[in-house]
Amino acid sequence: MEVINLLEAVKEVLSEKRYQHTIRVMETAVELAHHYDIGDQEVKEAALLHDYAKCFSTDELQAYINQFHLPEELLSFHHELWHGPVAAEIVHEKFSIKNPDILNAIRYHTTGRVGMSLLEYIIFVADYIEPARSFPGVEEVRLMAKVNLENAARKALQNTIIYLMNQDMTVHPDSYMAYNFLTVKTKER
Amino acid sequence: MEVINLLEAVKEVLSEKRYQHTIRVMETAVELAHHYDIGDQEVKEAALLHDYAKCFSTDELQAYINQFHLPEELLSFHHELWHGPVAAEIVHEKFSIKNPDILNAIRYHTTGRVGMSLLEYIIFVADYIEPARSFPGVEEVRLMAKVNLENAARKALQNTIIYLMNQDMTVHPDSYMAYNFLTVKTKER
Repeated sequence: MEVINLLEAVKEVLSEKRYQHTIRVMETAVELAHHYDIGDQEVKEAALLHDYAKCFSTDELQAYINQFHLPEELLSFHHELWHGPVAAEIVHEKFSIKNPDILNAIRYHTTGRVGMSLLEYIIFVADYIEPARSFPGVEEVRLMAKVNLENAARKALQNTIIYLMNQDMTVHPDSYMAYNFLTVKTKER
Repeated sequence: MEVINLLEAVKEVLSEKRYQHTIRVMETAVELAHHYDIGDQEVKEAALLHDYAKCFSTDELQAYINQFHLPEELLSFHHELWHGPVAAEIVHEKFSIKNPDILNAIRYHTTGRVGMSLLEYIIFVADYIEPARSFPGVEEVRLMAKVNLENAARKALQNTIIYLMNQDMTVHPDSYMAYNFLTVKTKER
């Protein structure tokens, strides 16, 4: 789909603040795509659409989770984790996006998962390091992103999980498993 | 089985240092049993036997994991996690211990698991707080142990997982899931 049309479409459903974040994620993801020598069309589509459902109310998200028969278990986790899976279903339907890498990049951009594709790593990391992000540890991940995307994703997951646990919050199993998976994988190198 | 006979049996397979730890875990576990008003015979058996395989070499533990057909996945985690499941199998065979609470308390004393019984919580927490333990956070768990065992176990899991992740180590899924489970449960109270 044409980037110009997707820009229009996401502008309609996002707040201005979230729209600006989306543009920054796209720019960061495109940089990573060029750095890792892959085409940027799919990266642009995934980046533009990753937060499509971010500004939906929790009631709307919950209705979509039921409508799309997404795992009910999702509702037992923080509602911050609902918008990725819902967005993947909506953009599949609304924009006829069928590329599983794009859909998975959108679906798992908040939690990560075991065995992400290069496109998924790019979106996951770009969302973490886009220039307006300023939490502790982000600069280290920015530097790692240009050297090894799996190391960068591992560090982002590690920081996020430790942050959530220090806040006494639950952590989605996909994040835990992705951290374990990448920790084993990066030690084997 | 008579405590005096178990004491002899574990003395044979443990180093002096580990034997003294085992005695302290038993004393702590008995205190908790009295505090929570349950009989102490099973608590004593589980505590005395929890580290039965702790001083086995990794080669021996690996051989037992294969011999007892324990999940092969176990071998992909740190060998520190092998002695609990192996000990549960051995004491079942060697001392005819059949009580599933005792066996589970031994099997899961390092990782924890979702839905532990009172006996399992007592052994898990006693192992974490016995008087010679002195790591950061242990005093808080000691205080919690006399108020609410699930809160104490949750805090112990939280401390351990964050510690392991800060060391760039993997974490067994049973620990992650137990932390999530208890975090939801204690928030609901």
